[in-house]
Amino acid sequence: MAGNSFGKLFKLTTFGESHGVAIGGIIDGCPSGLEIGFEAIQDEMNRRKPGQSEIVTQRKEPDTVEFLSGIFEGKTTGTPIGFIIRNADQRSRDYSHIKDMYRPSHADYTYAKKYGNRDYRGGGRSSARETACRVVAGAIAKQLLKDVKVYAFTSSVGDIALNKPYQDLDFSKIESNAVRCPDEATSERMINKIKAIRKEGDTIGGTVTCVIQNVPIGLGEPVFDKLHAELGKAMLSINAVKGFEYGSGFCGVEMKGSEHNDLFNKDGTTKTNLSGGIQGGISNGMDIYFRVAFKPVATIIQKQDTLDKSGNIVEMQGKGRHDPCVVPRAVPIVEAMAALVIADYYLQNKIYS
Amino acid sequence: MAGNSFGKLFKLTTFGESHGVAIGGIIDGCPSGLEIGFEAIQDEMNRRKPGQSEIVTQRKEPDTVEFLSGIFEGKTTGTPIGFIIRNADQRSRDYSHIKDMYRPSHADYTYAKKYGNRDYRGGGRSSARETACRVVAGAIAKQLLKDVKVYAFTSSVGDIALNKPYQDLDFSKIESNAVRCPDEATSERMINKIKAIRKEGDTIGGTVTCVIQNVPIGLGEPVFDKLHAELGKAMLSINAVKGFEYGSGFCGVEMKGSEHNDLFNKDGTTKTNLSGGIQGGISNGMDIYFRVAFKPVATIIQKQDTLDKSGNIVEMQGKGRHDPCVVPRAVPIVEAMAALVIADYYLQNKIYS
Amino acid sequence: MAGNSFGKLFKLTTFGESHGVAIGGIIDGCPSGLEIGFEAIQDEMNRRKPGQSEIVTQRKEPDTVEFLSGIFEGKTTGTPIGFIIRNADQRSRDYSHIKDMYRPSHADYTYAKKYGNRDYRGGGRSSARETACRVVAGAIAKQLLKDVKVYAFTSSVGDIALNKPYQDLDFSKIESNAVRCPDEATSERMINKIKAIRKEGDTIGGTVTCVIQNVPIGLGEPVFDKLHAELGKAMLSINAVKGFEYGSGFCGVEMKGSEHNDLFNKDGTTKTNLSGGIQGGISNGMDIYFRVAFKPVATIIQKQDTLDKSGNIVEMQGKGRHDPCVVPRAVPIVEAMAALVIADYYLQNKIYS
Amino acid sequence: MAGNSFGKLFKLTTFGESHGVAIGGIIDGCPSGLEIGFEAIQDEMNRRKPGQSEIVTQRKEPDTVEFLSGIFEGKTTGTPIGFIIRNADQRSRDYSHIKDMYRPSHADYTYAKKYGNRDYRGGGRSSARETACRVVAGAIAKQLLKDVKVYAFTSSVGDIALNKPYQDLDFSKIESNAVRCPDEATSERMINKIKAIRKEGDTIGGTVTCVIQNVPIGLGEPVFDKLHAELGKAMLSINAVKGFEYGSGFCGVEMKGSEHNDLFNKDGTTKTNLSGGIQGGISNGMDIYFRVAFKPVATIIQKQDTLDKSGNIVEMQGKGRHDPCVVPRAVPIVEAMAALVIADYYLQNKIYS
Repeated sequence: MAGNSFGKLFKLTTFGESHGVAIGGIIDGCPSGLEIGFEAIQDEMNRRKPGQSEIVTQRKEPDTVEFLSGIFEGKTTGTPIGFIIRNADQRSRDYSHIKDMYRPSHADYTYAKKYGNRDYRGGGRSSARETACRVVAGAIAKQLLKDVKVYAFTSSVGDIALNKPYQDLDFSKIESNAVRCPDEATSERMINKIKAIRKEGDTIGGTVTCVIQNVPIGLGEPVFDKLHAELGKAMLSINAVKGFEYGSGFCGVEMKGSEHNDLFNKDGTTKTNLSGGIQGGISNGMDIYFRVAFKPVATIIQKQDTLDKSGNIVEMQGKGRHDPCVVPRAVPIVEAMAALVIADYYLQNKIYS
Repeated sequence: MAGNSFGKLFKLTTFGESHGVAIGGIIDGCPSGLEIGFEAIQDEMNRRKPGQSEIVTQRKEPDTVEFLSGIFEGKTTGTPIGFIIRNADQRSRDYSHIKDMYRPSHADYTYAKKYGNRDYRGGGRSSARETACRVVAGAIAKQLLKDVKVYAFTSSVGDIALNKPYQDLDFSKIESNAVRCPDEATSERMINKIKAIRKEGDTIGGTVTCVIQNVPIGLGEPVFDKLHAELGKAMLSINAVKGFEYGSGFCGVEMKGSEHNDLFNKDGTTKTNLSGGIQGGISNGMDIYFRVAFKPVATIIQKQDTLDKSGNIVEMQGKGRHDPCVVPRAVPIVEAMAALVIADYYLQNKIYS
Repeated sequence: MAGNSFGKLFKLTTFGESHGVAIGGIIDGCPSGLEIGFEAIQDEMNRRKPGQSEIVTQRKEPDTVEFLSGIFEGKTTGTPIGFIIRNADQRSRDYSHIKDMYRPSHADYTYAKKYGNRDYRGGGRSSARETACRVVAGAIAKQLLKDVKVYAFTSSVGDIALNKPYQDLDFSKIESNAVRCPDEATSERMINKIKAIRKEGDTIGGTVTCVIQNVPIGLGEPVFDKLHAELGKAMLSINAVKGFEYGSGFCGVEMKGSEHNDLFNKDGTTKTNLSGGIQGGISNGMDIYFRVAFKPVATIIQKQDTLDKSGNIVEMQGKGRHDPCVVPRAVPIVEAMAALVIADYYLQNKIYS
Repeated sequence: MAGNSFGKLFKLTTFGESHGVAIGGIIDGCPSGLEIGFEAIQDEMNRRKPGQSEIVTQRKEPDTVEFLSGIFEGKTTGTPIGFIIRNADQRSRDYSHIKDMYRPSHADYTYAKKYGNRDYRGGGRSSARETACRVVAGAIAKQLLKDVKVYAFTSSVGDIALNKPYQDLDFSKIESNAVRCPDEATSERMINKIKAIRKEGDTIGGTVTCVIQNVPIGLGEPVFDKLHAELGKAMLSINAVKGFEYGSGFCGVEMKGSEHNDLFNKDGTTKTNLSGGIQGGISNGMDIYFRVAFKPVATIIQKQDTLDKSGNIVEMQGKGRHDPCVVPRAVPIVEAMAALVIADYYLQNKIYS
């Protein structure tokens, strides 16, 4: 109820604060007999981890996953998979100056009001550090799904947008640059933008686009649990996300039905795919694609006024080591959450097949 | 699991097909002692009901709610509230021509593939008729929430958009016109647009904006059940929705942190509200606002090619009585789902207070 | 949360008070394509219904089920099955004398304290009338399970017990007498006992035994959702139940491990079955059997002291038409709940097969 | 879904195998601001831990709990409490001889059939070692409940039963002897019984009785989630449990209504308490009490025939270090599960108060 679980059948429950002993989680419901590729999990962790390039936070965390249960002789046993990730770079002193302050547009104020007792160190539970656990579970979900391919990439940074249909992109180029944009020219402009922003002590928003291919027909549970509704919730649950659209999205509102309808081919595929691979909340076998909006990171290095516990407005200046733009590191998180949703609905669909 | 329930503590479960005997639902978890305003419920039903104006479908349904349990001497008893709405205007013959066809961009194909046995009459379970039950439950949620105010309105129809901040609008004008746009000049242009589109035998999309006021501080459950994540899921579960954004939304991605951060006043309110009333997934007491994108209705009167059960491409022409634009009737549905989410989190928050 | 749902995948949610307009429910998660035997459902209803024989309550209820959704052309569609049962014999006047009283060992006092506003007519939601909805859902679960056989029968009434192993009984005789005991001689003694008790204006307890045959190997979800734990919960949720034991049960506590262990045959069956068909919470393919204890009905015709709303001890005398012993009518309810549990775990197990 | 979570609002999810790296869990939903008594938690762990006396298994496990999150400066923060317990005494070699065997009346056969890939070491996930995590969570639940008192004790070992009403017992004596029976004379006979059984290389069953005092009126959620139904499920989910009864239990079936009804005092308490503190599934403020039946441990030191993976009947002899009777160590587990149920319903009840 307190919101630390995701999924119904392929279910992740997580715990942990940014500067506590460790973060971790339990994956319950993973079928037995799945051979686990540990290296592939660590690869995903490395895509998310701080300090991986010069355009992300320089906090150092090895982010090594320790599995504690549920895997025997390299394969899952059907029992819950427990795992932890030690917080190596705790440096609590970095945060003592914000102990009594509520940083603007952070969760400090709302956590303080809701919970009373608050672990202020590095944002505690509200820190995006928590998403590391999602990446672990998402990596296992990807291994379960085998044939399904999940590709996320940076589609804009500030006003620099990748203006190409995803069909014209080469997804193998996503990891070829630090910003994770598969178009070389655009990626350079994005990187330069982020560097300039960082120099200002400021931050910038961006969007991530995700394409899911080879999804079997029939995933999704009407009425309230439509596939895109759960994908939307999954994305909106990621720190800093402000919007979600799939298929034609917000552009679709200006179209007429006669333009927007996806006409069928004889084999049940459609000539266009403004539906985004989902009709009536259920996958139709076409590519699923969606776009996620990330706001600029709230922690900036510039001076800002803020509120303290006693109700005074005081000046503060961000220290710490933070991302000038979350989007590059958000790419693997978007993929992980997408994989978790698909894995969950894949299992749900097995019930009735 | 099969997706017909919404909410954890204030929980709605619905049933019913467009052309079956009746639709209905069960509201479980409504606290006892709530005096029910039956007229207010029927008023909400009338805002959603077909045939209410000349710009919506002319299907006739009185949509009278019959309550079967959970209310005694005018007040809730804490036991489940069962209700049904008879389907008056069934006219099944209207739909016999689509018995063996999969209409483009409808749920016909995916339901057929997922379930095999399909009630093809009027879309069956995938029809937006199902949303009538959401409006019943939402109306009760509104009564439970008393002080909280939920205002939705049409903010665009096709390319005609209401370009004013919501603070400049007079919400009391929402019901003054058929399209439910609180700005008179814009509403006229929207209505004309819809009439023109209907004349073409076509349909058009639009957006609904929703503002929720007087939400107590502290609603929302991190990590996965952030308040806006659940609001997003709620909206995306409504038929024809393609996108959701809250606060600064997709516009926020182009902003810098120094522009986007909402600075505090001494009383904990903020000078700006790009956060949209939610920080770290928890309400901060400021207005919650979000925007929902609706695609153009898939049923058009123009001829279209489509697929039949045997794999042939055949020509079809929409009959039936359908909406040229869903947005005017979607307004009370958006409000209902918003109220359900807030009511659920309101109860969740009582646990810890 | 408020406890009116049962099951995770094959899920029943119910509503309705004893003397309201109707009771009913929604079955969500029943797979599509199941041919529904309506007569078989009504047969089960008739086994539970009041007035069926001279040893049960003489309240008259036709208990006719009206299905509202989820079934099309005789088969399930995978969408929720909504149903209602009108309360024909409401006679609210029967209960006006208890409006301000808390009957001893009933739920009147606890409902009043918990909910404040209470439908006092006939026990309201706490009446066993609610179990009629369980029988509807259980009858459909039985049809889903086809090969699985669920047999419940009366194994004791007061001190008159059926002292034979179930293997020596002929289950086809269960319905041959009003008390539902498959042993003719014992059934006669039980019936006489109940008649004598009724003459005293008193009531008596009893036990129901249930045997489930042909359960596939592998149903049950460790750790907390062991198959027998859920069966226990299912039975304990039936009105008037005070105890549950399966396999060797309470007798097993006096045995040694060397006596209690079920030795294997080569084919994986066991020579004995003190385990009751479940090992480690998972079915092993042997017969599942358990025993359920029912207390004597609290409503008696004799005079009793009781408490009224104002804190006075007052004398009351049961009127109404009540069962002198619930056990004969509890037999189909026990079967229904057993079928619901097995159906739910059968679907859960499909996920991983 | 896979059954490793317990509770709705105060929710425990566990992981871990008997001989894996560690076991552990996540407690989600514990309110913030609770001061944690770490010593009290460890005390409960010591009551459950192996090697604590000469009548329990001599396996050595320090069972030290490491908390990883959710507690800050000694108090809970409302975020999930993650914890692990390292498996110190793994000695996997002890179990290599059973790698290919299915031990009689263990979970080996059903796990192998259900999951395929099985961690055979010490029973893996089916080992009662898993209950250590329940004790951690139960200890925190007890601290949350403060005024509620939960007392469990050994009420029988084999045929040696404590034949006194619980009101005549001094609960402060429970921990005064190794078998945890508050009656000195009976405890001695029980201990001698266990010693004799162990000498035979055999095992014996027993019962645990539990009394819960000072439970607020109003806990419990009809219809399916009656308080005693959830208590029953909680107890039946403990390894080796075969039966559950509360209040008058199985004895109640032989009583008449006129004897069984609990007459009221003016203050709403009752003169007798055959209801066991629960009416209509809701606590009435009187003592809750119930009895739990434990079968004899399946692992015996005597030779037994068993089945191997290839379908051969082979002889095996228990090695390892096992309990001759689980009941003494089951006492704190029964208390822990009772505390978890009460804590969960206590939070559920806050919603509506």
